[in-house]
Amino acid sequence: MIANELRELRDQIDEVNLDILALLNKRGKIVQKIGEHKEKQGVVRFDPVRERQALDLIMENHEGPFEASTIQHIFKEIFKASLELQEDDHKKALLV
Amino acid sequence: MIANELRELRDQIDEVNLDILALLNKRGKIVQKIGEHKEKQGVVRFDPVRERQALDLIMENHEGPFEASTIQHIFKEIFKASLELQEDDHKKALLV
Repeated sequence: MIANELRELRDQIDEVNLDILALLNKRGKIVQKIGEHKEKQGVVRFDPVRERQALDLIMENHEGPFEASTIQHIFKEIFKASLELQEDDHKKALLV
Repeated sequence: MIANELRELRDQIDEVNLDILALLNKRGKIVQKIGEHKEKQGVVRFDPVRERQALDLIMENHEGPFEASTIQHIFKEIFKASLELQEDDHKKALLV
């Protein structure tokens, strides 16, 4: 009975993990489009003001249970990964 | 026109960020329930086998555009934050 409850909670976690994964991939595709856009315009890819705005919006909507600093840390990792994705695409474009 | 397109893509990113935030918070709440459950059972909180299984399921479902190593890294940060959340709750429970 109690083991079943734990299994059910773990199944819920697996489901949320896959939902987060789907959103990360969706985010990655949008980021690639932004990268292509900036590539065409010859604009620099990293924009600290925009990153600050995006993070502020996230923190305004944060309700817990995680600490605010934890949420900031996770999103900064996501932002970093997104920038690397644009940079990889840029390198590939140069090699074509 | 082109500035509008960039703004629209950024709006999409903001929307996805808030969806990811909502899922992280949802995940945090499930993790807290698992923590309470383990607390009652006197079971250790960190379970590397379970973490490996959860990560394997994520990686089986990963399609890109991020590198697999990037996705692993982000989820390991989420796992770490979740364990810290359980540990904080444990400390609070001891103080009551």
